[in-house]
Amino acid sequence: MDKIIESLKFDDKGLMPAVVQDWKDNVVLMVAYMNKEAVKRTLETKKATFWSRSRQSFWVKGESSGNIQELKEFYYDCDADCILLKVNQIGDAACHTGYRSCFFTKVKSALDTEIVGERLFDPDKVYRK
Amino acid sequence: MDKIIESLKFDDKGLMPAVVQDWKDNVVLMVAYMNKEAVKRTLETKKATFWSRSRQSFWVKGESSGNIQELKEFYYDCDADCILLKVNQIGDAACHTGYRSCFFTKVKSALDTEIVGERLFDPDKVYRK
Repeated sequence: MDKIIESLKFDDKGLMPAVVQDWKDNVVLMVAYMNKEAVKRTLETKKATFWSRSRQSFWVKGESSGNIQELKEFYYDCDADCILLKVNQIGDAACHTGYRSCFFTKVKSALDTEIVGERLFDPDKVYRK
Repeated sequence: MDKIIESLKFDDKGLMPAVVQDWKDNVVLMVAYMNKEAVKRTLETKKATFWSRSRQSFWVKGESSGNIQELKEFYYDCDADCILLKVNQIGDAACHTGYRSCFFTKVKSALDTEIVGERLFDPDKVYRK
């Protein structure tokens, strides 16, 4: 484990981006950030675990919503500075807004965007206050 | 154009990651970085254009190898801090090592990785000195 983690090149904040892809159809669900410990926890627990830059804490994806991501495959790139996870997305939707993918905003033209896909859950119901 | 670019949230270095996906089968080819001008050039020219952090210069993907990426679709995520490009990859291989995807290193076990895929070109022949 340490051998693999030591070969990864984290940035000056100790982080690197991780692309999360649905292992069933290769849809890109989200991008989040990992530090060494998040990589370790993800590989050990087989649940995608990130470092939340806004909350400055570890974040097991799906902890609140139940929509966890079971790790199927773990890759890193030719520069060893980016990770790709293939996951089994429980509950289908990865995005906290209720969309399947965080990439639901498509640039349609120079001035216009459109929303693609549909909400799979209502965030107000899932993330209770 | 400016409206879209102004809605994007670049990091403290003026950059954000861009995931590049093959529009035909959703394979993730690579992740690179864009600044405002790279976003503008990509949308205008329809050729994926990045900011090279190592060279500190603009980088039209495929400029040297001929393996350019024709922009098909341009998305950004729910936080507006990550981009997803769907491209038509000319020459099939995106990685400068000759592999189709930069993510050819798969973590097999706690101590071991394996190379997946095969080289589609010989970098020594493509990037002539």
